[in-house]
Amino acid sequence: MNAQLKSFSTEGDYKIRDIALADWGRKELDIAEHEMPGLMSIRKKHAATLPLKGVRVTGSLHMTIQTAVLIETLKDIGADVRWASCNIFSTQDHAAAAIAATGTPVFAWKGETLEEYWDCTLDALSFPDGKGGLIGPELVVDDGGDVTLLIHKGYELEKGDESWVNSASGSHEESVIKALLKRVHAERPDFWTRTVAEWKGVSEETTTGVHRLYQLAQDGKLLVPAINVNDSVTKSKFDNLYGCRESLADGLKRAMDVMLAGKVAVVCGYGDVGKGCADSLRAYGARVVVTEIDPICALQAAMEGYEVTTIEETLGRGDIYVTTTGNKDIIRVEHMQAMKDQAIVCNIGHFDNEIQVDALNALKGVEKINIKPQVDKYVFGNGNAIFLLADGRLVNLGCATGHPSFVMSNSFANQTLAQIDLWANKDTYANKVYLLPKQLDEEVARLHLEKIGVKLTRLTQEQADYIGVPVEGPFKPDHYRY
Amino acid sequence: MNAQLKSFSTEGDYKIRDIALADWGRKELDIAEHEMPGLMSIRKKHAATLPLKGVRVTGSLHMTIQTAVLIETLKDIGADVRWASCNIFSTQDHAAAAIAATGTPVFAWKGETLEEYWDCTLDALSFPDGKGGLIGPELVVDDGGDVTLLIHKGYELEKGDESWVNSASGSHEESVIKALLKRVHAERPDFWTRTVAEWKGVSEETTTGVHRLYQLAQDGKLLVPAINVNDSVTKSKFDNLYGCRESLADGLKRAMDVMLAGKVAVVCGYGDVGKGCADSLRAYGARVVVTEIDPICALQAAMEGYEVTTIEETLGRGDIYVTTTGNKDIIRVEHMQAMKDQAIVCNIGHFDNEIQVDALNALKGVEKINIKPQVDKYVFGNGNAIFLLADGRLVNLGCATGHPSFVMSNSFANQTLAQIDLWANKDTYANKVYLLPKQLDEEVARLHLEKIGVKLTRLTQEQADYIGVPVEGPFKPDHYRY
Amino acid sequence: MNAQLKSFSTEGDYKIRDIALADWGRKELDIAEHEMPGLMSIRKKHAATLPLKGVRVTGSLHMTIQTAVLIETLKDIGADVRWASCNIFSTQDHAAAAIAATGTPVFAWKGETLEEYWDCTLDALSFPDGKGGLIGPELVVDDGGDVTLLIHKGYELEKGDESWVNSASGSHEESVIKALLKRVHAERPDFWTRTVAEWKGVSEETTTGVHRLYQLAQDGKLLVPAINVNDSVTKSKFDNLYGCRESLADGLKRAMDVMLAGKVAVVCGYGDVGKGCADSLRAYGARVVVTEIDPICALQAAMEGYEVTTIEETLGRGDIYVTTTGNKDIIRVEHMQAMKDQAIVCNIGHFDNEIQVDALNALKGVEKINIKPQVDKYVFGNGNAIFLLADGRLVNLGCATGHPSFVMSNSFANQTLAQIDLWANKDTYANKVYLLPKQLDEEVARLHLEKIGVKLTRLTQEQADYIGVPVEGPFKPDHYRY
Amino acid sequence: MNAQLKSFSTEGDYKIRDIALADWGRKELDIAEHEMPGLMSIRKKHAATLPLKGVRVTGSLHMTIQTAVLIETLKDIGADVRWASCNIFSTQDHAAAAIAATGTPVFAWKGETLEEYWDCTLDALSFPDGKGGLIGPELVVDDGGDVTLLIHKGYELEKGDESWVNSASGSHEESVIKALLKRVHAERPDFWTRTVAEWKGVSEETTTGVHRLYQLAQDGKLLVPAINVNDSVTKSKFDNLYGCRESLADGLKRAMDVMLAGKVAVVCGYGDVGKGCADSLRAYGARVVVTEIDPICALQAAMEGYEVTTIEETLGRGDIYVTTTGNKDIIRVEHMQAMKDQAIVCNIGHFDNEIQVDALNALKGVEKINIKPQVDKYVFGNGNAIFLLADGRLVNLGCATGHPSFVMSNSFANQTLAQIDLWANKDTYANKVYLLPKQLDEEVARLHLEKIGVKLTRLTQEQADYIGVPVEGPFKPDHYRY
Repeated sequence: MNAQLKSFSTEGDYKIRDIALADWGRKELDIAEHEMPGLMSIRKKHAATLPLKGVRVTGSLHMTIQTAVLIETLKDIGADVRWASCNIFSTQDHAAAAIAATGTPVFAWKGETLEEYWDCTLDALSFPDGKGGLIGPELVVDDGGDVTLLIHKGYELEKGDESWVNSASGSHEESVIKALLKRVHAERPDFWTRTVAEWKGVSEETTTGVHRLYQLAQDGKLLVPAINVNDSVTKSKFDNLYGCRESLADGLKRAMDVMLAGKVAVVCGYGDVGKGCADSLRAYGARVVVTEIDPICALQAAMEGYEVTTIEETLGRGDIYVTTTGNKDIIRVEHMQAMKDQAIVCNIGHFDNEIQVDALNALKGVEKINIKPQVDKYVFGNGNAIFLLADGRLVNLGCATGHPSFVMSNSFANQTLAQIDLWANKDTYANKVYLLPKQLDEEVARLHLEKIGVKLTRLTQEQADYIGVPVEGPFKPDHYRY
Repeated sequence: MNAQLKSFSTEGDYKIRDIALADWGRKELDIAEHEMPGLMSIRKKHAATLPLKGVRVTGSLHMTIQTAVLIETLKDIGADVRWASCNIFSTQDHAAAAIAATGTPVFAWKGETLEEYWDCTLDALSFPDGKGGLIGPELVVDDGGDVTLLIHKGYELEKGDESWVNSASGSHEESVIKALLKRVHAERPDFWTRTVAEWKGVSEETTTGVHRLYQLAQDGKLLVPAINVNDSVTKSKFDNLYGCRESLADGLKRAMDVMLAGKVAVVCGYGDVGKGCADSLRAYGARVVVTEIDPICALQAAMEGYEVTTIEETLGRGDIYVTTTGNKDIIRVEHMQAMKDQAIVCNIGHFDNEIQVDALNALKGVEKINIKPQVDKYVFGNGNAIFLLADGRLVNLGCATGHPSFVMSNSFANQTLAQIDLWANKDTYANKVYLLPKQLDEEVARLHLEKIGVKLTRLTQEQADYIGVPVEGPFKPDHYRY
Repeated sequence: MNAQLKSFSTEGDYKIRDIALADWGRKELDIAEHEMPGLMSIRKKHAATLPLKGVRVTGSLHMTIQTAVLIETLKDIGADVRWASCNIFSTQDHAAAAIAATGTPVFAWKGETLEEYWDCTLDALSFPDGKGGLIGPELVVDDGGDVTLLIHKGYELEKGDESWVNSASGSHEESVIKALLKRVHAERPDFWTRTVAEWKGVSEETTTGVHRLYQLAQDGKLLVPAINVNDSVTKSKFDNLYGCRESLADGLKRAMDVMLAGKVAVVCGYGDVGKGCADSLRAYGARVVVTEIDPICALQAAMEGYEVTTIEETLGRGDIYVTTTGNKDIIRVEHMQAMKDQAIVCNIGHFDNEIQVDALNALKGVEKINIKPQVDKYVFGNGNAIFLLADGRLVNLGCATGHPSFVMSNSFANQTLAQIDLWANKDTYANKVYLLPKQLDEEVARLHLEKIGVKLTRLTQEQADYIGVPVEGPFKPDHYRY
Repeated sequence: MNAQLKSFSTEGDYKIRDIALADWGRKELDIAEHEMPGLMSIRKKHAATLPLKGVRVTGSLHMTIQTAVLIETLKDIGADVRWASCNIFSTQDHAAAAIAATGTPVFAWKGETLEEYWDCTLDALSFPDGKGGLIGPELVVDDGGDVTLLIHKGYELEKGDESWVNSASGSHEESVIKALLKRVHAERPDFWTRTVAEWKGVSEETTTGVHRLYQLAQDGKLLVPAINVNDSVTKSKFDNLYGCRESLADGLKRAMDVMLAGKVAVVCGYGDVGKGCADSLRAYGARVVVTEIDPICALQAAMEGYEVTTIEETLGRGDIYVTTTGNKDIIRVEHMQAMKDQAIVCNIGHFDNEIQVDALNALKGVEKINIKPQVDKYVFGNGNAIFLLADGRLVNLGCATGHPSFVMSNSFANQTLAQIDLWANKDTYANKVYLLPKQLDEEVARLHLEKIGVKLTRLTQEQADYIGVPVEGPFKPDHYRY
């Protein structure tokens, strides 16, 4: 199935594409460090105290160059790290190689099968316990909640609840997860229980993953304290908005080399991700149409001059479709069948189920032609074709290299501060979802200002008193929206 | 001082410039109603039930055409309304005339003195009590908190605390307020006490006014439940951002007819107001420089491509200065003295003390030349001059007509829903500051979509379940930032 | 018809609204001079040599503050100037007053009738000939070609060709012109012949006027050398594009105070004027639709992300219509009847016949309601209404104050250089249409750079040789499009 | 030097990287055809008449997918085509393979040495003459003028003028050309003479190449009629402006994955290319600084809100430098030495000498580190580094895939119409430089409208008469600037 598997580098405690790519990866890491002042400042500040000294950290997060800088930051402040990607297409193989070459266990390559993906996740969770066995992490860095899901579901199974693993699966991926859990259950019967006993927390950075956490907490099932990194301003308003503004067009260009000017581009969803996408596409001269369910976001889109209508009304005139919602079934098979010939369809939201990819692949009378990696042409019975990018997975990661370093430095500085915070408060935090305090959020921003030449104005004491804030901040109430 | 006062229309229970302007005002009201679908929908919805039937409502809010539509909406749902402006320059005299002509008491004209302003505020607070005396309102619509201040300070005085009214005044306006309170105290000794006994709430729509309310609540001094309308998304993200984007340039153009392209424009503050201003000025081809105290907002400005630096570093190259902060002493006398010849200085934040106007007027060796209403030239000893607009008060209201109707329909729909909510919950609300529930916020947005041709997508039940929200909304967690 | 005529100031050789406005006008002239570095530099450069010493110059150009700076520039370099406006609504009365107060004959007020307009034009053409009679100008500054038309038609009549003055008139204005010419013919039988004998040239600054000149030249009827100022880059790409980008929204706002965000705005024509308008409206958050006849301009509009379609397809969804074409019958009565209720219709192109105003006024069953000066509401039989601004004449001049000073400094520097050039070459130029040489065009730009802080890079001799241009310019071939 | 040369596919009359890439190339050709409606329409229109039947055409133009569509268009209308690239880095190897696979001789691969490059150019010029010998083309499609140069210089040599080939060379490339010409002179002594005898014309599409042609014509040395395709509106205003707006960021992203928001980007030159680049970078949130020599272009940049200053003043704060000028020595070694650490330097103008690459490579104390293909890091003695992209050659072609298909369809439709025109008029055209008539320019635009859904408005006869143009166009005078 994946013919290239045989070229794997399997020396050492890692599974990656090719360890020979490590030098190239290191050169790009050097460049990225220069663009990630937040992480570099944190390294410097905590170099002496090592706040995560010896702490077992599992990361499940796109194994890119930027993530490599995060990994090395976690290591620099003391952590014992194992890593997997959180997406089958998002690994940059030279980044993984550079990390593996330093002796950090990493399990990720671009183009994993789903089976491989979940095996890698398990590998990242399996620390030697010092007694010849394996044990899970004390802290988790999660993106999309896959590690959190696996631990919760594994633990549930060990507690005797087999209902989920034996239920009918709604997708192929679900059945893969269940098979894995059954196998682990057979091979390491108390693995999850021992893991949960020492697990102190998870920080999560996506809307989708956070949503899962709030649901678990609401249902009283959350096993550890969690920090919602996604809703730090310096994450949600930076990574989602500015990151996508930088990387959507990048993905489209590398995949299709298409002229964006003059095209009708349909952006499904006008949250932060959708705002960044719409902004970018318009700047290229595309005519952007937005679809929305939320009247507030819809009104915002209208105030920016976008047409807001339903996807159905765009069929036949939309040239490019981008889903940004975090929801599912946004672009359905019947939509794709009715699109203009050679429309381009992609997702930059969360899971590939924003587009009905499985149903498309199962559809009779459709011919699928691979153009190049991550670009497939589907020809329908009526002769019309569409192009699906990255199999419906994140187009900026699948077809390009994801968000640029500088924006990720914001997100990952939040992740790192969250990890430090979880560990420092491991004895006091409850099993619920926390936000990082605003002061840390402002601190993350502050760490990035000098690099881009920003000079802040400083309040006088009199001014600070007048508006009732400390001279040093925080400057805004918690409900402030930026 | 104000030679035109003698032309006042004083027939009836109002003080306005000229009742003959009523017809023109009515024509513009007709146009505005078409642009204010939120208010018109509320009228229709509550026409039968009259939720504010007979409730005494005092409004202190710029007496513009848009406010006139708000006033008539409040009346249409049953209220007994009296109105003053909240700014000495912001009244549109034809709007006031149109309202007065219908028999609604209104006390406002463009170009009040501070003494007149506070007298008008008192007039708007003085309802006939049906027994030959006067009594205050049951509900207050406030903008900037002047009515709230007056009631609280008057009440404090009647309770025997004379410390404030006898303290030294930091500004001329403060001494005017104190004189007024002493006069009321002499003439109507229990007026505020009787008023507070029946006062059920206040809704407030500015950052500054809301800040005062939170301080009162925090100090345990807030006398009534308050609704923070400012932080409804459909207010803060619409009025502040889109409103200023529409009206700043309008004020600058009407005042100075100046070419914005090619100019260096310094925007002090990058909150919602500053974002709207910077966006507008850049679109005209100005080179925008931002000053900020908050590292997060500063980073946002940088991400949008603005230079962010201190005001001191802009002196000598800035052509246009706009304050947007809600703080004081942003542009100081020493700044103005060091500006480029013929720089334009104005404020769109909140109070005129964002610019040190009093100190400028008191400065020796400065010549002040009035060019036309709301435009003054100050010539410094070194021969350089600056232009100060609207005496440092809100430039969009002083030099133009404020925000356009459509955006105000959002703000005022929130105000109206807040008034209804306060009255409906008058027996249960505590004396603290509430936000409108998100569902009402979404409702306000929804009322404006049809007018501009927006078609919303509707969640399927399955999709709603997947993301864990009701099909009808609300769609976002409270901490969502839009 | 024009009740205010009686308040005219008629002392001295001028007809204006009110000489008492002169002081205000002078203050604004002082401000404008600061924004018109091109004209001020020309004054300084030619102060000693007075290249137009004693030359009779008639100007027919919107009598605004900026034009006043042009007039005083022409006077400063020696000219004997008489002036009229070229549009019945475009005069700024305080500007006219300031000019009249200095003793320069000026004939212009805001709101002339067509009869008054053409009388004013004649007055501006009538210099005392020193022998008790009257004679026309030696040079003409024209805008739209009305003065050129009048001289040519008057001369034709004196030469015995009565065909045109006796022909049926296509519009009311045409009949006014014919009546005037007959009257002049009766009163001053050889006026035009004597005028033409001494007339040395005309500079013209509009697309429409230039087009007329090329037609006259092509037909061999042009009586003098003409300079096409319109097609200087620093005119066509500055006044038309940047001027309208600054002033369209200004006109819309002062007339209607309308929210532009979220509106569908239809811009008819995508030449330089249309480009500036579309750009401005989009920046405000309007959704812009363009109509075009020229496939190249249409493709440009599409590349900028605008929808390009026919006006018919926009009816029912367009909120704002702007004509920018220089052609006629762009918005026809049947269009206006089918528009969305309360659509706004205006023209920023050239003549009021871009919109079928006459036909609209003549239409049965339409009610016309004046809202305020320059704003009329037309209510159709079906209950729908539209707003027509400035009677279909230039909305930026009729409803606001036209282009800002800085951009006009470019246009008027071209006009002034053209006048100097025409006079200097009066003995050598043929009766055809000339463009200003590129070096003068670059010079006009250069005069404006310092004011806005631009630092030019200077070619080395080696670089200049490499691209084959002089170090000092001109830098581009004549066909270069900028 | 080029280790991969050994993998060449050399079967048949071509030199390319790998014939196995043909299938992939064909798939992308299929996609491109859909995006190139101009070329496809021309194919259809001339399918029957074959206006270039049997004509020998040599092309020297970036061997990309889009060029492949041009090549097949020329073949479809009858031409006998041979092709080389006009840039050592710009070939897309799968495009070359697809063309070679159809039997069309093509000589191009990504990463040629200069020697290989000029050999390829000669190969593309060498048609079998049917008598066992070789002869040059009857028509040339040129980009940058290299083929034109070679023929002119070769012919000069055969005519006995050895001055140039024996002169000192200013660059390595110049010496390569001279060596080649000497070799040809030895091997095929009358090749250029016989070629020139049958050569009927050249169409050229770059500013630089056109400039060379005008110089040749001015010096009386131009050997054939030439068509300046560059200055068709649908080329200069589309390819240069919109093409670079699409492809500059693409090149930067693929090379460096850098965040553009918040960066200071210096764009050298504000012609059409510079305008597109500045526009794109600003849209990403970069702060753009422009350098210019021409006061008109400088003023345009200022009117768009860009800071305009000299490159020297940007050193230390510029993060990204882009040259767009067509001139040389724009970024000099002393500039690069003084740049901010890790500044990115690239060229999208014309030749690599816009940046002093040779001097940089020759500089003592500089360490050059290759990061990946087309990305080199230069570390200076002071520890600072810069990144040079594509060795100073066109960054959009070297680091990405050049302009997208749709914009190239405009340029190449002009090229094709120019070829047809040259052949049709081969007996009448003089040896000078022609522009395509405006009607053809409009036709090119028209061919692209339907694809993007544009609906043109059609003039009535009355409107056409009013503005004095035919109903069908052309609509504008030749001096119109768009």
